[in-house]
Amino acid sequence: MECYLDNSATTKPCKAAVEAVVSSLENDWGNPSSIHQKGVNSFLVLGNSRKVIAKSLLCENGEIYFTPSGTVANNTAIFGAVNSLKRRGNKIVTTAFEHPSVQKCMDKLSDDGFEIVRIKPQKNGSIDVDDFENVIDENTILVSLMAVNNEVGTILPFDKIKKIISKKNSPALLHVDNVQGYLKIPVIPKNCGIDLLSVSAHKVHGPKGIGALYINKNVKIKPYVLGGGQENSMCSGTQGTPAIAGFAAAVEDFGSTADNLKKIENLNLRFKEQLKSIDGVFVNSPDDAIPYIINLSLTKIPSQVSVNYFSMNHVFISAGSACSKGHRSEVLSAMELPPERIDSALRISLSHNTTELEIDRCIEVIKASISELRKK
Amino acid sequence: MECYLDNSATTKPCKAAVEAVVSSLENDWGNPSSIHQKGVNSFLVLGNSRKVIAKSLLCENGEIYFTPSGTVANNTAIFGAVNSLKRRGNKIVTTAFEHPSVQKCMDKLSDDGFEIVRIKPQKNGSIDVDDFENVIDENTILVSLMAVNNEVGTILPFDKIKKIISKKNSPALLHVDNVQGYLKIPVIPKNCGIDLLSVSAHKVHGPKGIGALYINKNVKIKPYVLGGGQENSMCSGTQGTPAIAGFAAAVEDFGSTADNLKKIENLNLRFKEQLKSIDGVFVNSPDDAIPYIINLSLTKIPSQVSVNYFSMNHVFISAGSACSKGHRSEVLSAMELPPERIDSALRISLSHNTTELEIDRCIEVIKASISELRKK
Repeated sequence: MECYLDNSATTKPCKAAVEAVVSSLENDWGNPSSIHQKGVNSFLVLGNSRKVIAKSLLCENGEIYFTPSGTVANNTAIFGAVNSLKRRGNKIVTTAFEHPSVQKCMDKLSDDGFEIVRIKPQKNGSIDVDDFENVIDENTILVSLMAVNNEVGTILPFDKIKKIISKKNSPALLHVDNVQGYLKIPVIPKNCGIDLLSVSAHKVHGPKGIGALYINKNVKIKPYVLGGGQENSMCSGTQGTPAIAGFAAAVEDFGSTADNLKKIENLNLRFKEQLKSIDGVFVNSPDDAIPYIINLSLTKIPSQVSVNYFSMNHVFISAGSACSKGHRSEVLSAMELPPERIDSALRISLSHNTTELEIDRCIEVIKASISELRKK
Repeated sequence: MECYLDNSATTKPCKAAVEAVVSSLENDWGNPSSIHQKGVNSFLVLGNSRKVIAKSLLCENGEIYFTPSGTVANNTAIFGAVNSLKRRGNKIVTTAFEHPSVQKCMDKLSDDGFEIVRIKPQKNGSIDVDDFENVIDENTILVSLMAVNNEVGTILPFDKIKKIISKKNSPALLHVDNVQGYLKIPVIPKNCGIDLLSVSAHKVHGPKGIGALYINKNVKIKPYVLGGGQENSMCSGTQGTPAIAGFAAAVEDFGSTADNLKKIENLNLRFKEQLKSIDGVFVNSPDDAIPYIINLSLTKIPSQVSVNYFSMNHVFISAGSACSKGHRSEVLSAMELPPERIDSALRISLSHNTTELEIDRCIEVIKASISELRKK
């Protein structure tokens, strides 16, 4: 039996997504910028796909810009916002446990002379909204935070930031990296004043190689990838229409956020309940984390050893994020966990396709790994 | 009968490419950065795909970096080179008829204070290598030119530039945008001292949404898209493995450059021979252009009117490039063609799948369009 419990790294493309990709490749393969019928057919698929993503975020079609990845969405949002607003201030506020596609942009902006304030998570992994209140000011041009942390599942107070920005008379745009929360928790830009929001297909059973950036229609940012003017000049390059069609199909197929969340909560409880009976296991995720992600430490077993052992037993999990392969988790370090917990941390991440059987099998393998691998 | 003669805009994905995409989506859908078996499977597909692209350019696997598009490859090459070398000079040499994904980067760099020298094509559409000789100097940090012009098919003297750079003691890197020439004419980076070379899958019967950048292993440039460090940190973001697998399959399926070229030359001759008997038709492509592209003007019929008329007759061609939808061709303007030829210009672009029947059908429709549409 195979248990894939690494759904925060990537998900298995759903059948509807595969079919949509194939249909794009076989039938609607024209260049959506071509004005002849072949182009128009592809353009229509592009438009319909955009409509699906827009609907999922309760925004207008014209507020959705396809990007080749969540990473390009984040780069575009951050550099685009900063390049638009750099005459109005010099400060950027973010957190200390963002995804590398945000962190590395911040490193670059720091090199370029911007003041980057990185708010640290508390020891329980949560983020205190007061910390934002204390640093956002009239000189702040961008606040960028994730909706859901990719390693421990913290749900960040993204919905409370806009009010602070307004209260402080700050010109800051609010960017939310919602790659991990998309469709899993309700994050509706208009409801909480989010100006820029990044999502990605391959975390929601769509294909790898496509993402999208929501840009509020009243907000103007500079494009980052320059060229032929596709995506209303916000992200140039011939659109990856097969992946875009697959993205939309996956979003339509995903099901109700609330129903899925309920299912996942039950799986999460079942898992944690069984964990309690195992010695030397620590849950690193905050209690109020998104139930899709459970970060835990099997102390005295190095993470990579566990991941390999689990893999040999056909249980696929990760040691932190897939992107930080081989490096000590910056997220857990930011949480100031003791080294022995950081070095033995594992991330179990669920999907609405996950079954109770898979949860139980994972627990079995945890027990077996401890009995076989833990240093006495 | 459908005649798709817009292969420079995009091509129909070949069967092998579709199958490879599906296999990636259905079987090898892990995140290639994940260290468990699902990740390793995907990583192997990525590695094998890289090998195929590297082989096609006779370079090392480690010199190929996947990018989400030819556009991102061009942005990465240009901004990456300039950011690496900006302390050594201020001048960038390019041509006046590059693809927008190069031109717009140059516009940005011009705004940033760099001196951009744009070499104009001659009236016959060709580029004089002496013009490069006259401007490349010790202050030049980048020379960027396409191998094949996307609208008229000019083959540029990319193979003669490196010698000039050396002779002039210039620190310049040589970037060649080979999106239009890839697999169609031999452009081997090592043979002509190309440092950076961009290619794209969807021009060679691969899927839209993937490209690659060759970077000579002795050359260091700064990355443009920042994040999790994928592609050896040169282009971050989870790789679009389905499109990458499709890209490699298309390249393997493409056939011999020389054999295809011979076939295309015959089709090109057949087409031009028949054109001779039609009044008021001008070929805008240089005589020594790549035979895959024929730019011509049906004077007194606006380009868009022709494209629509052809489309209604199931012949799919374009008015210049797909990217410049609705704008007057900058390429033909740079060639200083008379306005009536620019405004009636059409691009016919062939593939090794094009048949003689399609060529003949296109000629029929040209004749019909003239008799029905040309203003008396």
